[in-house]
Parts: sequence; C-alpha cells; structure tokens
Amino acid sequence: MKGQKRLRDYGIKIGEIKTGKLNSITDVTGVKVGHLTLSDSKIKTGVTAILPHEGNIFQNKLIAASHVINGFGKSMGTVQINELGTIETPIILTNTLSSGVAYDSLVKYMLNHNDEIGRTTGTVNPVVCECNDQILNNIRGMHVKEQHIMMALENVYTNFEEGSVGAGTGMVCYGLKGGIGTASRIVEINDERFTIGMLVLTNFGRRKDLIIDGIKAGRKIEDIQKAMDDKIDKGSIIMVLATDIPMTSRQLKRISKRTGVGLARTGSYMGHGSGEVVISFSTANKVSHYEKEATVQIKVFNENNIDKLFRAVGEATEEAILNSMICAETTKGRDANVRYSLKEYIGEILK
Amino acid sequence: MKGQKRLRDYGIKIGEIKTGKLNSITDVTGVKVGHLTLSDSKIKTGVTAILPHEGNIFQNKLIAASHVINGFGKSMGTVQINELGTIETPIILTNTLSSGVAYDSLVKYMLNHNDEIGRTTGTVNPVVCECNDQILNNIRGMHVKEQHIMMALENVYTNFEEGSVGAGTGMVCYGLKGGIGTASRIVEINDERFTIGMLVLTNFGRRKDLIIDGIKAGRKIEDIQKAMDDKIDKGSIIMVLATDIPMTSRQLKRISKRTGVGLARTGSYMGHGSGEVVISFSTANKVSHYEKEATVQIKVFNENNIDKLFRAVGEATEEAILNSMICAETTKGRDANVRYSLKEYIGEILK
Amino acid sequence: MKGQKRLRDYGIKIGEIKTGKLNSITDVTGVKVGHLTLSDSKIKTGVTAILPHEGNIFQNKLIAASHVINGFGKSMGTVQINELGTIETPIILTNTLSSGVAYDSLVKYMLNHNDEIGRTTGTVNPVVCECNDQILNNIRGMHVKEQHIMMALENVYTNFEEGSVGAGTGMVCYGLKGGIGTASRIVEINDERFTIGMLVLTNFGRRKDLIIDGIKAGRKIEDIQKAMDDKIDKGSIIMVLATDIPMTSRQLKRISKRTGVGLARTGSYMGHGSGEVVISFSTANKVSHYEKEATVQIKVFNENNIDKLFRAVGEATEEAILNSMICAETTKGRDANVRYSLKEYIGEILK
Amino acid sequence: MKGQKRLRDYGIKIGEIKTGKLNSITDVTGVKVGHLTLSDSKIKTGVTAILPHEGNIFQNKLIAASHVINGFGKSMGTVQINELGTIETPIILTNTLSSGVAYDSLVKYMLNHNDEIGRTTGTVNPVVCECNDQILNNIRGMHVKEQHIMMALENVYTNFEEGSVGAGTGMVCYGLKGGIGTASRIVEINDERFTIGMLVLTNFGRRKDLIIDGIKAGRKIEDIQKAMDDKIDKGSIIMVLATDIPMTSRQLKRISKRTGVGLARTGSYMGHGSGEVVISFSTANKVSHYEKEATVQIKVFNENNIDKLFRAVGEATEEAILNSMICAETTKGRDANVRYSLKEYIGEILK
Repeated sequence: MKGQKRLRDYGIKIGEIKTGKLNSITDVTGVKVGHLTLSDSKIKTGVTAILPHEGNIFQNKLIAASHVINGFGKSMGTVQINELGTIETPIILTNTLSSGVAYDSLVKYMLNHNDEIGRTTGTVNPVVCECNDQILNNIRGMHVKEQHIMMALENVYTNFEEGSVGAGTGMVCYGLKGGIGTASRIVEINDERFTIGMLVLTNFGRRKDLIIDGIKAGRKIEDIQKAMDDKIDKGSIIMVLATDIPMTSRQLKRISKRTGVGLARTGSYMGHGSGEVVISFSTANKVSHYEKEATVQIKVFNENNIDKLFRAVGEATEEAILNSMICAETTKGRDANVRYSLKEYIGEILK
Repeated sequence: MKGQKRLRDYGIKIGEIKTGKLNSITDVTGVKVGHLTLSDSKIKTGVTAILPHEGNIFQNKLIAASHVINGFGKSMGTVQINELGTIETPIILTNTLSSGVAYDSLVKYMLNHNDEIGRTTGTVNPVVCECNDQILNNIRGMHVKEQHIMMALENVYTNFEEGSVGAGTGMVCYGLKGGIGTASRIVEINDERFTIGMLVLTNFGRRKDLIIDGIKAGRKIEDIQKAMDDKIDKGSIIMVLATDIPMTSRQLKRISKRTGVGLARTGSYMGHGSGEVVISFSTANKVSHYEKEATVQIKVFNENNIDKLFRAVGEATEEAILNSMICAETTKGRDANVRYSLKEYIGEILK
Repeated sequence: MKGQKRLRDYGIKIGEIKTGKLNSITDVTGVKVGHLTLSDSKIKTGVTAILPHEGNIFQNKLIAASHVINGFGKSMGTVQINELGTIETPIILTNTLSSGVAYDSLVKYMLNHNDEIGRTTGTVNPVVCECNDQILNNIRGMHVKEQHIMMALENVYTNFEEGSVGAGTGMVCYGLKGGIGTASRIVEINDERFTIGMLVLTNFGRRKDLIIDGIKAGRKIEDIQKAMDDKIDKGSIIMVLATDIPMTSRQLKRISKRTGVGLARTGSYMGHGSGEVVISFSTANKVSHYEKEATVQIKVFNENNIDKLFRAVGEATEEAILNSMICAETTKGRDANVRYSLKEYIGEILK
Repeated sequence: MKGQKRLRDYGIKIGEIKTGKLNSITDVTGVKVGHLTLSDSKIKTGVTAILPHEGNIFQNKLIAASHVINGFGKSMGTVQINELGTIETPIILTNTLSSGVAYDSLVKYMLNHNDEIGRTTGTVNPVVCECNDQILNNIRGMHVKEQHIMMALENVYTNFEEGSVGAGTGMVCYGLKGGIGTASRIVEINDERFTIGMLVLTNFGRRKDLIIDGIKAGRKIEDIQKAMDDKIDKGSIIMVLATDIPMTSRQLKRISKRTGVGLARTGSYMGHGSGEVVISFSTANKVSHYEKEATVQIKVFNENNIDKLFRAVGEATEEAILNSMICAETTKGRDANVRYSLKEYIGEILK
C-alpha cells in the first residue's frame, strides 16, 4: 500500500473472491499496523506491531486461535491462546533473537496501560512471533531495543507499507527479498458482508519452487540468473489472520489451517527449518476481563457456510505472500549478501 | 440408583459440592440411559446407551468435546467431535470387540430416524466407546448383536441401575468388580443453578492402589484377602460428562480434563493399557443441522468462574467411579474367573 | 497400474524426484493392496485393503502416525495410533456407513490369525478409514458385508488397479470420477535409497478448482461442459503413506502433514465436509508385541535431511490424486447420477 | 537438600518406589541446578536454571517433550520442542513478567557458547517457564536482570536448596509458602536401573484442598488458623522431568502426563488461572546438531513396561510438590503480605 505497486497492479489476480477496499488486514475495522525499520549496511531488521482493535485489548479481549503448520519457531503466547481462546495484547513481529526484548517491551507497554496487572489482577500474555533474518541482518548483534518496539506500537496505521519494512526488513523469501505483505477478502452470506484480512511476514522457500498463480516462476528465474543457493534455509512464515466474522476459537483454528493452501500454491513444501505459525482473531465479540454474568451471549458463524471462508483464507494468504515479495526492494545486507526483488524478474515471468 | 445402596449410603461423601436430585448424569434435563445386559456362565457383557436429549439429535446437535487421557482405546467418533465440536448421535458403550456392531447398529438407528442421511444430506458420525471385559467375558465370542444395541437405545430412563449392568456387566476395576457408575454436582453462580452429570464405565486399576476418599482401601483389601493379581491389565475407563451449562467445545474440553483429578484420587496412575476417554456435551445450545442464518447467537459460560466447574467435575468423577464399584455385584465369569464386589470389603475398610 | 494409462502416460510429470519402479505404494517392500468391487446399477462401492507387511502385523507392529487435515470423517483407530505410535492391523478403506462392518470383520480376521487376542493378551486396534460415496452409491443400503472385507484382505497384490475400483468404486473427485490412486518417490541420501509410497482414496473437491501441474484444468472443463453442480459436497480424502525410511511416530507425522501440499496443488481448499485423514507407517523397525528387553535399538531418520522427504510426500500425494482420477472410468450410479472420467477431458486440457 | 529437613524427615513417605541417592532431579547423571535469589522487603523473586547435561547442549541436543496440563501460562520454547522433540538450551524458571529478559539472556548465553548460531547455522530455541509471584513480589518492578539469569546459569550444583529460593522465592502454594522442590525414583527392569527425577516450581492451589499422603491437611490448617483467602489465584506449577531412560519424544510425553496424578494427589483441581506445564527430557540419546549419517541408531524404552514409569512419575511429582512446601520458609513480601511455611503446621497435621 502507500502507493506501492502490488501484485494486482501487475495484472495478477489471485482467486475469485473480491478484496476489501485496501486489500489489507486493516480492512477489518479497528485493526492497525505499525512498522519500525532498522537499516544500515549490516543491520537489516525491525519490528511490526499489529493492534487488534482500538480499545483496551487487555480489558476487552478478542477470541483468538493459534495454529502451527511447522513448529521450528519460537513464537510466544500460543500456550495461553490455545487454552483460553483469547488474545489480550497487540501482536509483535520481529527477528528471532529479539523476541525476548519484544516480550519484555510488550509487558512494559501493557503495564503502562493497565495499572491492575500484577496487582489486583493477574499477569498478561504477550504475543510475539519471529522469523530469522540472519542472511541479511547481523542478528547476533541483537539490535532491536525497547524503544523500537514502543515506536512500532505507537505508530500504527490502516494504510501501511509492505515489503522490506518493519520486521520484514531483512527477510528472504524463495531466494528473493521477502518481508511484510497483506491482502483481504470480502465474503457475503445472506446479504451480510464479512471481511477476512491477512498479514504475513515471509522468510521461507527455495527459489526454484516459486509459483505465481500457477506459473512456475522460480524455474524461470533460475534460467534468467543462476541463483545463489541459500545454503542455510532456516526460514519461517508468520501469518496473522484478522476477521470481523463472529467465530469461536475452534472455528478460527479451522479457517487458520487453510493458510496452508495459499502457502502451498506459492510453491512451499513447508520446510523443516521453518517456523510456520498462524495467529488469528475475530473482532466480532469482546471478552470482558471483568465479566460478572454467569453466562454471556456471543455470536458465532454458521459453520454450514465455512467453505466460503476457507477459500477466502487460502486466496488472501497466497496474495499476501506474493505482495510481500513484489513490494520488497532489492536489499544488500551483512557481508554484502544481496537478495533481489521479485520486481526485477516479474516482467520476464509474465511474458 | 433404583434402590441400590450407593457410596453415600455408606456414609462416604466425596467433596464439598452438593449433588443433583438423583446424583446422576440424568439430573441434566433430557439425558437418559439404557442398559442391555448379557449374562450367562461365560458371557458377561452388554451395552449402555446414553441419549443426550429427547429430540432428534441429528437435526439438533449438541456442542461437544472429546478428551483422551490415555489413548490405548478404540473409541469411535472423536475425530469429528474434535473438528466440529458437536455430537449428532446417542453414545454407545460396549466391549472392545463389539464396537463394530455397535457402530453398524447405531448407523441403522440413525438411518431409521433420518431419511435424509446419505440421500439429501451427508452421513452421520456414530459415537461408540468401549472397554475390554475379557477377564470375565468370552469377548472373542462377539456376543453383542444388533438387537442388543437397539434394545439399549430404545429402553432409556432417568432412573437406571449402576454396577454390573449393561456395558459394565463384565468390567473389572481395581481388581474388584467394576461397571457403570454415575454422580452429579450442582453449581450455583449468581443465583443460577447449573448441573454437571457424569457417567463412567470402569475397567481399570490395580487393587492395591484403590483409594476411597483418602483412605488407602486397596492396601486394606490386600490384607484381608491375598488378591488374585490381574496379570492382564488391559483396562480402560470411559467417562461421559453431560451438563446444562452453556459452553463452547473448548470450554467443555477444559472441564473434561478435570476428570483426571477424580480418577487420580481413586488411585489410578492412568495405566498404559487403559483407554481413558472422555466424551462431554452441553444441552444448553442446539446446533441446527439445517441452520440458514449467517451467524447464530449462543450462550457461553463466563470462564472467570470455571474453577467451580473444575471442582465439580473432579468430585463427580471420583464419586461415579466409586459408585460403579459399590453398586456392582460379585461376578463369576468365563473360566470361573471371579471378581468380588467392593461391598464385601467396605465394612472392614471403614472401620 | 495393471496396464492402465496413468498420468505420466499423458506426458505429465509431477515434481522433480524420481519414482519407484511401479510408481506405487507397493514399491515399499512388503506392502500389498487388495480390492473388492461392488457394482451394479445402484450399488457402486467396495473395499480396499492395505497390508503393511507380509508377516504377522499384530505380533510385529510397525511404527505409525495419523494426521487429520480436516476431521469431518469417521476414521477408526487413530486414538490408539496417536498414543502408541504403532499399527497392528491391515488398513481397510470403504464407504462411511460400512465402517462398522469393516471394523467387525477386521476384528474377526485378527482373531483368526491370533489366538491370544482377548485371551492371554489384550484386544486389537482395527484401522478403518472411509469416504462417502452416496452420489453414485446407494449408501443407505449398506451393501458391504463381512465376506467382502475378507476377500479384499485375502487377495492382495503389489500390482493393483487404480481408479474406480475397491473402495474407490463410487467416489467422486473435483466433480469427476475419483477413486483409488497411487504414486511413489525414491529419495537418495548418502548413497542410501529410500522409498515413499502413497495411496489415496479421493472423494473431494469442486470441479472448477481442479489444477493439473499448474494448469487450471477445472476452469477448462467448465468451459467444455457446463457441469452438474455437486450440491452435496460431503467428500473426503484418505491418504495412506508407507515408507521404508526408519522413522519415529513424530517424524512420520511431520512428513504426513506435507500431503496437504500435494492436495492444495491439485486445487483443494480442504473443504468443510471433507474427512481428510492420513495414516502413515514405516516398515523399517518392527515393534514386537512380546518384547522382553528393557530397551530396544531402533533406527531413526536424521532429521537434518527431512526436507527431501517433505518434497517427496508432496509430489507423491499430488500425483496419486491425479492418478486416481485419470485411471477412473466414467460411472453411472444410483438415480442415474453420472460422473465422468478425467480421461474424457485430458486431451482438451493439455492442448 | 543441603541439610534442609524434607518430607521424608518428617516420616512421610510417598508411594512405594525407592528414591535416588539425593531424591532429586540431579540423581539423573549430568543434570545440575542453579538458583539466584532476589529478596528484600518488596522484592521476592529469582531465577532457577536447570542444565540438562554437562556438555554443549546446542551441539548435542536431548530428546524432549512438553506437556500442557492447563495453559494459562507463558512458557517459551514449547512450539519447537513439540515439533522437533529436542531441547537445545538450559531451562530457565523465573517470574512471569521476567520471561522476556530470561529469553534475552539465555539467547546471549547460547551465543557466547556457540559462535555459529545466527551465522553458519540457524538460531536457537530458549526454554523459559514461569509462575506469577505477585502476591509476595513486586512483580511490576521487573527486578530480574540479565546478570541474575547468568549467575543462575553459571552456578549450578547437584546438591541444591529447595523451598523459597531461586524462582521459588516468592511463590505461594495451597495458600502457604511454595517454591522449588525435587524428588526422584529408581525403576529397575531386568536388572537395569533407571532414574526419573522431578523438579517443580509450585505456585498454585487453595489452602483448604491440600492433601498430604491422603491426609486432608488443608482442612486441618483451616481449623488451626482461619486463613487469609487468596482472592487472586493466578497460580501455576512448572514441572521439569529428567530421566536417563532412553525414550522417544512420544514416550516422554506419555510419562509427563502422569505428573497430573501426583498433582491431583496433593489436592489440586488444576485451576483455571494456573499455567501447568511439564518439560521433560532424556539424557540417554544425544542428537547431534551436525549429524551427517542418513539414519542413526537410538535406544528406546520397551513400552510394555511403561506402567512402572507412570507410577514413578506420579510419586516423584507428589513428593517434589510437598518438598517445595516443607522446605520453604515463612515469607513476608510486598505490602506486608505473609505466607506461612508448611513447617509451622506439620506437627499438628501429623498428630
């Protein structure tokens, strides 16, 4: 977004379902995204923050789910999401070795906004997800600091950049430059309109495998340029799924699994070294931290129609991944490692 | 029930929460239980059927969950319960090798009641759970037939027998006679009354380990009578939890896990050879097979109060297990194998 | 096989890894497959049996895993596979409503071969998987009988038919005729050759979505023939993965998950009404039922190389699905319902 | 240990299996434990580090498992343990809000010991578990710093203190003072001796529920002293299980589940607000980070005998919990909150 040329601007349309206005996770009302980018000749990393809604998320939690496709990853917060089916903090994405400072900073952010945590009520469950940007970034330097996390959290927008920004700054996808991508789908049922938004942090895959809407793009790129092999493929993908559809945690988990369809359609075999994790939440029901009633009413989705959502999730994931690549810039990082943008090849691929 | 002398009639009261009127799973309105007992000198087996509500369960499904404590068992139906969070048939309990005929018969029962299954709508997910009664029963004979399943399904009551009846006819628990037991608890929250009912089929455990309300009863029994060791401890316990509390499948699963507390308190180490499976359902929300709305309202439990339910489930499980034993009769089965009733020792134990 | 024209015979090669000699699950030494087909104007169903090895599988179990992609299915045996990580019976595939008779018959088959079951040792865990063939088959008739299961078990081969045979007789895939398909891949690591074999029973998908090696074949077929919509998409896919690679249950589960990649590449969104279940086993280590040693040596795979297996599983699944379709014959079943063979369209699709 | 008076010194013997020499997790050869205690009038917290073996754990990983009994907790590292079945770092226990600094410090510790992490090989999976010590500790102060984590990691012993030390400094158990406890069991099979060691961090439970070897101790304490109710029961228990028995990850998970038996026997209902997490590992097989062979030999346990391990785990857990309490000192923390030692009541209880 923000004037960037995205997949559809190249004439490629994934799937059959229409997109939201921004074709972004932020088409789900209330969701906002903030980036903090750290970039010099050796440091290529950053932070991306996703705010699930505009109110106090600790006091008004959202129903949520996590799903692990491949667990070679260090995501934090999933144990409690699985048990309670809620999220109660923003979601932070960053590099693997900076997850500790992300947790620490997110705790401080939550304490600042909620005097009662650790005093008159219990603690809080920070959600932090990560990929390993070590090819382009001096990850051992652990350059992400508390102020960077706070800046990402405090500067959030509905219209945000994709590609090599925020947590995506140093990420590598299919041997090209990866990073942050997003997409959305609108599902209509009985005249009601619902939105599914997806944001991905892409850092996985072998160049030769890349598929773009059925085109074996990776093999074409191999022909154009004999590629640098990524000997260390310790990649990952983080997928954040937001929706305004009322759903239980079980239902969210079901639709979260269909991210795998989108992922496979871009060429992934869900590699061993990949931490492939989905965090999903619905903005439709709020779960009050101080609920007093014995029982509460919630709305849930009529599961007879869930196939429509499966398709929407698959499509949005596929498109968000490709957006993360087509929006990314060719990047030279530590030890003069370079990863090229998909932009440089897309003309040839589409010929 | 039905005039049987139960645990409380011996002055033993498990826990602190009050019971329902019958202290039975059938205290949950709509739940009914039927037994068919097969008993001669070699055949000691049978069928127990649990009807979750009085209407058409296929058309009006209930929210449900399954939980496996130890999976050395052959329960059927759990894959779909886990995915969809509903049950759509009665629950059949029988011996392990008769599970096939139970599934087959339950399919026929469902076809008889629902013309559209396999025609204008899809198929159906039978729920069948089992224990291995081979110590007392000639299980290789596969004596349970279709008509036995049908009779159990068609003769259901709120006031039913416990002990060595139905699926419990040949079961062995803690080296004594086991079988069917039940108990219930009433939980009050903000002046609302909720019921949790538990029915167990007990067939597990080592005599020496039996604990009755903290008393190491098994060791006392060992002193009274040098026991026949159960060399083949291929036991199991099936636990069916019914409640009128509105809950999601995730919430049901959480409370289902606390059956393990009750189980452990009676002396179990959740043995290797044991299929320890919980099926739980809530009668509070109906899930219509032909729902047309995009979204539906359901009531769910305010999880801030769930500790009260955990305790109730633990207590009801513990008491139901002990009821299954104290209500069972000394039984001589195949090859003159005998398992004695706990009744014969309870006087000594309580001294 | 057996002289059938398969996908590769049309010039379509899935992936980059070479196949085994038969390009079949039976390339894994010891694995055999048997079919029993029931076919008249209304009855279109049958049984497929997979024998994991040629010896006594109860006495010498194999390490195994199950994986549920979508659990709208009634597979039996997965609870115990998950707990113990072994299989101890052949695997039976049949239609949904005949799963009970399949379980019952498989019990009898096991009792016949093992006198000790239910006497001096415990019971046995039958593995039965199913799809719903109600579009072409009068499934309510429950036409599969004990003798059919036995015949499938007793007539097993390494060279077996694919398409509309055995359990695949009445199955429907992507709105065309589905059924049984198989494929295999050979993985070489440090001069050692390993085999991965896949057998699928296909009964899922929307015609428009079919993809063949990147080609949007389904849309082309829609153009050729305005399709009969499958209003009742209560489909499923069963995937049986055999390998001679030494693996733990956890490792088998990891590679089993990559079936989803192959599935997605053929166009599936892993539909709501689909029971998508994988049963996998390795023939490399035998687990003795009567093991006496305190500990045993097993071989396991060096997981650093597991990416090669992921790719092989993805490819074999994709090809097996397409083989199930291209080998199937156009079939007219109950109520004159017809599903056409992919063969009738493949010429146009490849133009 | 270290001269502390433990449960057995009061004449209470849990179970029937004999203990290791130290009755400690450190009876498993190679396992060492370090504490760093922070204690003043407001600060009551600390760090406990468990080293799984004496070599380089990143280069020679151990087979491991995690098990969540109740997931109201923030443990880190479990996603990867579940996927790969190994641990590759020491285990850090601390308070909930300090988990971020623990992760961060553990990363630095691992980087210091392994130059290749984040350069020529991938990253690392820190294992951090936590309980909430806010009743006695000013947890919002986030007083644990990097040097504290490092000191715990660098000062490890086989003979270590229990009770109100390290991560246990501010913990509360059954309304009394909790903290660190340990115990072990020796299992003999075919003349081979195996050790199971358990270390717990206890911070859960309602006073009235405490059971000591069948004695309803909590109710007796209530009689002695009308207790301060713990209105905020946001407790937890972390259980670390070490063994020298060769086991797969699946087997470790199975025995880990039996911690629930020990827990229930002390009176727990596995409360809602409790993060009850088990991390288990076996020292018997090393998994080389740089393994080159296609397959490797490992030893695994003959599961036919696993019941003996289940019992041992149950007993060791029960005893470790009680040791954590009986070794703890009465502690006055923030806001003059006091939690008394079980020592003060044990005489009355045993009368």
